[in-house]
Amino acid sequence: MFGSTPTTAVDILMSNPIPLIDHTLLSPQTTEGDVATLCEQAVEYGFASVCVPPLYVPLAAAALYGSEVAVGTVVGFPCGYATLRHKVLEARELAAAGANELDMVISIGQAVDGKIEAVAEEISQVVLAADQARVKVILECCYLSSELMTQLTHQVARCGAAYVKTSTGFGPHGARLDDVATLATAAAGRIGVKAAGGIRDLATCELMMAAGATRIGTSSGVDIAGEWARRGERIG
Amino acid sequence: MFGSTPTTAVDILMSNPIPLIDHTLLSPQTTEGDVATLCEQAVEYGFASVCVPPLYVPLAAAALYGSEVAVGTVVGFPCGYATLRHKVLEARELAAAGANELDMVISIGQAVDGKIEAVAEEISQVVLAADQARVKVILECCYLSSELMTQLTHQVARCGAAYVKTSTGFGPHGARLDDVATLATAAAGRIGVKAAGGIRDLATCELMMAAGATRIGTSSGVDIAGEWARRGERIG
Repeated sequence: MFGSTPTTAVDILMSNPIPLIDHTLLSPQTTEGDVATLCEQAVEYGFASVCVPPLYVPLAAAALYGSEVAVGTVVGFPCGYATLRHKVLEARELAAAGANELDMVISIGQAVDGKIEAVAEEISQVVLAADQARVKVILECCYLSSELMTQLTHQVARCGAAYVKTSTGFGPHGARLDDVATLATAAAGRIGVKAAGGIRDLATCELMMAAGATRIGTSSGVDIAGEWARRGERIG
Repeated sequence: MFGSTPTTAVDILMSNPIPLIDHTLLSPQTTEGDVATLCEQAVEYGFASVCVPPLYVPLAAAALYGSEVAVGTVVGFPCGYATLRHKVLEARELAAAGANELDMVISIGQAVDGKIEAVAEEISQVVLAADQARVKVILECCYLSSELMTQLTHQVARCGAAYVKTSTGFGPHGARLDDVATLATAAAGRIGVKAAGGIRDLATCELMMAAGATRIGTSSGVDIAGEWARRGERIG
């Protein structure tokens, strides 16, 4: 059912989650200073990326220039009901401003309405507008049936996005293990699976990875890295 | 302190709140059918406007064509951290698509950082891009001191917006009476004051109006209209 590595308890305990973390700060009141700190932490701990508000992409791109840490941001976030034209313009602008990864929200209302072709069209157009930037497609699973999640994940893979992602963190609930497993099964290794929303400790990270997550979005990266380091000391 | 009419208990009980209501549906999973129903209700009850996701502005504009109900939507919503360029493009696009009222969210992080000139600049540019559409500026008071609310309300009036508005409904709390009073005092009749977020009954509407609100954003307009009608029957 959990169609992804690692698969045993030992594997999971040995598998370092830190390089899978998108170090995230998307609160409305985020300041320049907060973003500067976030970028320093991402380099120090070796996270995969930062995920910051669109407004701060140039700042993050400058702060992370020459590092291994990717610059991530969001498109049509968090409600997903911007117009298609607007999502395309936003993706193009943010990629040009230095974003390497774009987490876009689908038109959830259209998905719920069964307008799968309209959702596929927006994913395709955002992927095209994103140019070199990798696109992660946020389904906002809290509003969807597992059948819809599966259908949409196939579209995400077909339309050239890099990841399917569970949640914005703004909905009634964030990542759930069964939803991650549903996305991972549908993705079948063609695209990555990002679990996000409510992941605040190492144990939850590892459960998400066991369910098939290949990227973790969290605002608690520093705490999780601390837990990981302490476990290493105990074992080592 | 509550610098606005009506001012006495009797005035408030006699004052019809229905024409002040922005009949609002901004949930991420909103569908076309939901918006069609919302528009029908707005005409039936005589609300000031509907407030709908950007994606559905053309639909609402068609549904409300020839009616007295204004078409409202949102810009940079609900986090306010889109780029300035992006807010301007969104405002221009939505006004051209038929929106008469645009509720924009300021860059809250910049406001918190004391970058009042940057916030004023974005308000001015959105007002310009909005052309004939009225702009309501959402401060998201839950993140601000009352000094900042006052300072920002002066900028909203100076920059040509039509209303200052308390909240998105997505923050930790919605409209509070003391915040409405703070905005109304600073506005001093130059611009309107819109209270929004968590307003679900007639009594709360009337308290907001007593505190100085001249427009009410709510998803509970039909319930509130029902309460108002029943009161009329009891009195009449």
